[in-house]
Amino acid sequence: MSQTLKLAVIRGDGIGPEVVDEALKVLHAVADGELDVQETPFSLGADRFLATGDILTDADTAALAEHDAILLGAVGGDPRDPRLAGGIIERGLLLKLRFAFDHYVNLRPTKVHAAVGSPLSDPGVVDFVVVREGTEGPYVGNGGAIRVDTPHEIATEVSINTAHGVERVVRYAFDLAMRRPRRHLTLVHKTNVLVHAGSLWQRTVAAVAVEYPDVTVDYQHVDAVTIHMVREPSRFDVIVTDNLFGDIITDLAGAISGGIGLAASGNLNPDATFPSMFEPVHGSAPDIAGQQLADPTAAVLSVALLLDHVGRADLAAVVTRAVESDLADRGTTRRSTAEIGDAIAGAAVAARTTTA
Amino acid sequence: MSQTLKLAVIRGDGIGPEVVDEALKVLHAVADGELDVQETPFSLGADRFLATGDILTDADTAALAEHDAILLGAVGGDPRDPRLAGGIIERGLLLKLRFAFDHYVNLRPTKVHAAVGSPLSDPGVVDFVVVREGTEGPYVGNGGAIRVDTPHEIATEVSINTAHGVERVVRYAFDLAMRRPRRHLTLVHKTNVLVHAGSLWQRTVAAVAVEYPDVTVDYQHVDAVTIHMVREPSRFDVIVTDNLFGDIITDLAGAISGGIGLAASGNLNPDATFPSMFEPVHGSAPDIAGQQLADPTAAVLSVALLLDHVGRADLAAVVTRAVESDLADRGTTRRSTAEIGDAIAGAAVAARTTTA
Ligand SMILES: CC(C)[C@H](C(=O)O)[C@@H](O)C(=O)O
Ligand SMILES: CC(C)[C@H](C(=O)O)[C@@H](O)C(=O)O
Repeated sequence: MSQTLKLAVIRGDGIGPEVVDEALKVLHAVADGELDVQETPFSLGADRFLATGDILTDADTAALAEHDAILLGAVGGDPRDPRLAGGIIERGLLLKLRFAFDHYVNLRPTKVHAAVGSPLSDPGVVDFVVVREGTEGPYVGNGGAIRVDTPHEIATEVSINTAHGVERVVRYAFDLAMRRPRRHLTLVHKTNVLVHAGSLWQRTVAAVAVEYPDVTVDYQHVDAVTIHMVREPSRFDVIVTDNLFGDIITDLAGAISGGIGLAASGNLNPDATFPSMFEPVHGSAPDIAGQQLADPTAAVLSVALLLDHVGRADLAAVVTRAVESDLADRGTTRRSTAEIGDAIAGAAVAARTTTA
Repeated sequence: MSQTLKLAVIRGDGIGPEVVDEALKVLHAVADGELDVQETPFSLGADRFLATGDILTDADTAALAEHDAILLGAVGGDPRDPRLAGGIIERGLLLKLRFAFDHYVNLRPTKVHAAVGSPLSDPGVVDFVVVREGTEGPYVGNGGAIRVDTPHEIATEVSINTAHGVERVVRYAFDLAMRRPRRHLTLVHKTNVLVHAGSLWQRTVAAVAVEYPDVTVDYQHVDAVTIHMVREPSRFDVIVTDNLFGDIITDLAGAISGGIGLAASGNLNPDATFPSMFEPVHGSAPDIAGQQLADPTAAVLSVALLLDHVGRADLAAVVTRAVESDLADRGTTRRSTAEIGDAIAGAAVAARTTTA
């Protein structure tokens, strides 16, 4: 009798639907006979907002909450459309779900795959994970402005950091470091300028570290970490950091590895009070939408993170191996989104057979 | 009759004194007969603080204010020394001077020199300048914490952005873009999350752009800009950005170009109400201090920015050419800090003779 997975699917905007279709293709290939995947589609994103004026209703949130996990392609319409200005979809949907479902861990692994290479001429062995805080920092929406559109305008943005919020993500990062061979943790912040938030992060890491004597710990300022990521990315194992710093350095991590087309992410609620949400790091890329030009690999690898999160590390490993074998086989001919999905799904079936 | 330059010199900590000595050597080589350099040394930094308890007194600030410009090596002692925790020297000296002297433009040029190369396998022609705001944003020191060291601790950091502060730095960036062949300006922010500050920056750039029809303008989120800096840095010309984003992306810019050992910066008060301050982007690197291992090139290039700022673009060009010829001549033998300084000073004398 196979386990049931109630999966909410937000295909979203732009290239979102295309990459999600391939991710689901791979999911079904590995799930067959192992996992009973019950999908519920949710039409959310810029198109729905422009048609109905709704971004995410309370009913949407309640319905999403009934699922074991959420798979999201990408959201966001044409950036030049004034009706979508100021990140209204990103904040009203993506960030709203991260906050509503208390996704306090935003997990973003980075690997340089030998077959794909890197824009760095000598990257070394790159295999690290960024644990980005997902519910605090400058993302809380706690800013304002007075005298707008006058020469006396003042606009503020407030970063909020709590002992509760910092400690739980730091603990997650230490637990993760313990499960990895190198057992190394790097805290990234800007403690020499953001002294109050920085001090809270630093004291929390120091306090939790006492419980994890096997994990070595170091610290880097967010500016300096960009240098090391370019010059010696192999030094990193687990990085734990604030919401905004994590946003910035994970795009950089994508760039120095195989590119943002391979970067997967999980918005996790490790307590499982709410469903976790899995999405490629890339955006909706409306300029190439509907043309089968997008690489679905990041969406497929997000499915691997999803499987791992719902307790099927075995199936996650099949997906990862299938992606790796597809990357190794990539020639120079450009394949369509669906062709890449087919190839990975095929490799997944083959990998399952080999293992069985 | 030569012009007088009243120069305040803060050699500072770690490798600061070594690199400043070479920068002054080059300055004297180009100034000879052209500029009467009158130096005043200021002993400021971690050593002075540890000895006296003072970081920067009102008398220090008043005395510095009497100068035409400030040359600073690097400040900051051993990061493991608990007496120096929380960036006390960086904030009490470097940031205090930036704020006291209203250094609202932090100018940071980036070039990939053919002879030096880049960790990127294919950087292309890289020649851009980051105009980082220097007196606002999350650097204002407007944060706090309650219930410190309890499970209920809350720490905040406030980013403050004013129409006045944003407009003046944006204008500077447009003026700079007009003086460069490509006349392109990129605003970097995170307008989809930091909506109030982001909107102020975006509206200001749009409003000022009307006065500069010859400058093309685009916008990138701070996360996405890291991708472009790694994958296609040649696309950038002038970047204007907030204090914190500028801090992060200029270290990245240093990394993708010749390294932080070549990155110069000017903390400018363009109104000349107060002296501007010139410093290498690198820190004090206490671990290699006093060993003649540091590359003084960033300090020397900071002197070029200084000469340009005091109206001697001709002498600045001599310094830049001397550095370029030295970079082209660099073999594989490791030279001491002083040997590099001697070589650049020699090249500067030769360059002057050629030009004369
Ligand atoms: C779209 C945007 C709000 C989002 C973020 O800043 O978190 C994105 O950049 C990401 O990294 O998931
Ligand atoms: C030392 C530190 C306070 C400083 C900053 O953050 O501005 C440094 O990183 C820089 O870029 O000049």
